[in-house]
Amino acid sequence: MLGAIEAGGTKFVCAVSDEQINIVDTVKFATTTPAETLQKVIAFFKRYPVTAIGIGSFGPIGVKAGQADFGHILNTPKLAWQNFDFLGVLKAQLQVPCYWTTDVNIAAYGELQAGAAQGLSNVVYLTIGTGIGAGVIVAKKFYYGLSHTEVGHVLLQQQPSDHFSGSCPYHQGCAEGLASGPAIEQRCHKKAAQIPADNPLWQLEADYLAQLCHNITLMFVPERIIFGGGVMHQKQLFPLIRKQLTAKMNHYVSLPPLDQYIVPVGLGDQAGIIGGLYLAKKLVNAE
Amino acid sequence: MLGAIEAGGTKFVCAVSDEQINIVDTVKFATTTPAETLQKVIAFFKRYPVTAIGIGSFGPIGVKAGQADFGHILNTPKLAWQNFDFLGVLKAQLQVPCYWTTDVNIAAYGELQAGAAQGLSNVVYLTIGTGIGAGVIVAKKFYYGLSHTEVGHVLLQQQPSDHFSGSCPYHQGCAEGLASGPAIEQRCHKKAAQIPADNPLWQLEADYLAQLCHNITLMFVPERIIFGGGVMHQKQLFPLIRKQLTAKMNHYVSLPPLDQYIVPVGLGDQAGIIGGLYLAKKLVNAE
Repeated sequence: MLGAIEAGGTKFVCAVSDEQINIVDTVKFATTTPAETLQKVIAFFKRYPVTAIGIGSFGPIGVKAGQADFGHILNTPKLAWQNFDFLGVLKAQLQVPCYWTTDVNIAAYGELQAGAAQGLSNVVYLTIGTGIGAGVIVAKKFYYGLSHTEVGHVLLQQQPSDHFSGSCPYHQGCAEGLASGPAIEQRCHKKAAQIPADNPLWQLEADYLAQLCHNITLMFVPERIIFGGGVMHQKQLFPLIRKQLTAKMNHYVSLPPLDQYIVPVGLGDQAGIIGGLYLAKKLVNAE
Repeated sequence: MLGAIEAGGTKFVCAVSDEQINIVDTVKFATTTPAETLQKVIAFFKRYPVTAIGIGSFGPIGVKAGQADFGHILNTPKLAWQNFDFLGVLKAQLQVPCYWTTDVNIAAYGELQAGAAQGLSNVVYLTIGTGIGAGVIVAKKFYYGLSHTEVGHVLLQQQPSDHFSGSCPYHQGCAEGLASGPAIEQRCHKKAAQIPADNPLWQLEADYLAQLCHNITLMFVPERIIFGGGVMHQKQLFPLIRKQLTAKMNHYVSLPPLDQYIVPVGLGDQAGIIGGLYLAKKLVNAE
């Protein structure tokens, strides 16, 4: 059997499946201390004869094999998790091969294998939720430079009409500070789901997300940008983002047809777990 | 012998060297029509027994081997060059293997082999001159998505004190429109070289270039960012960019030591030609 862990800063999801990625059991629980959380993870997987586990973790994390911090969670604001050797503890307890990458990368991989990116080679998966993050796949492989990307914190042009001070404690005018779920909630004093689809907020939100797509397009030059995360349940955003990206790019580079370029996640909230299972399968097949 | 071509929108530089990259002859001429310009290129190389040529061209260009537009110049504003089969014409006339990529990529490669990026794997070479462009090397290879990057046109936050409308005909507030040589000249009504080092313009310029570094850092996560191009002859920019990048990043990710992270080009105006010669050498060695 195959295993997957989607390790979020708020909640963990674990799943096991057969070799054809049919999920047979799933468990979700809140992210508390490393010891308590990992104990639940280990108890779940010990019930099944798993042969490999694909893990996507909140970050920042060490992703360079061979480096001392590989498999660790790094300088997260969740202090109990700082420098925690997630992968080391898990492998010591479960004694199975594990594939280790970011939570957004496993979602991108799920979309590549079974979702909205099937058949493609270069895709960016963006999640717009509690935070903003991106899983970047180039030539069918995860993109890493010196480490993984932190696309959510790129700087955007704040609209003159938008006097919100931003929700990011680090940066003035970064994407996460202007356009994440908490940014919307702090700006409007209500949750995204409670704001009507015709509220001007969505034009503003689409402007920021179109800027993010503009910069991603010119830097990573993907074939498709896939949006997931809670904020993107607001389907009215998609045509607005496409329209504003077209205006901003202004024919400087030719974009793929926009309804195929800016698309919603194909696997919904399952993208990460399914991606993790496919990564586990890849590990098994590589042996 | 090895050959290199740095094909700029304004001027062409061609060079030949021995196998140890000792340049034995160089020629420069203005970029006019494709026929006239290529005729000069071909006449130069026919005088030497070159075994391979490394070419870096202004763009956008087709860089995907096997595609119909590979080796072509694409939708450039230089209309005579649109859809010109640069590589095809050259190979037909000279009958030697040619390595084909962008002008900024060959400069990045020169820096990797013999300049400020020796020993590294992930570097971004930025040129700040008539335009802004980036050569991106990841795991010692050129970065391509669906095509090459167009980093110069990412959107930046325009400072409230800066009322300049921008020099880019496509985008409001892109890097090239705010911080290229022509942007400085149009904003200040004098050339960069004529503006004193203590003029507040350089703080503004450094702010924009630090934003560009911020976004490149979070997206490509390079080990080093190397600056070339005419504007960067203003050496006072380097400490200003380092200081402003530190402030903007605000410890969100840990940067390498800044005097090793934000550095001037090591090979000066020779980076492109030397990179082209190394790419020619690579072709010869691969045979």
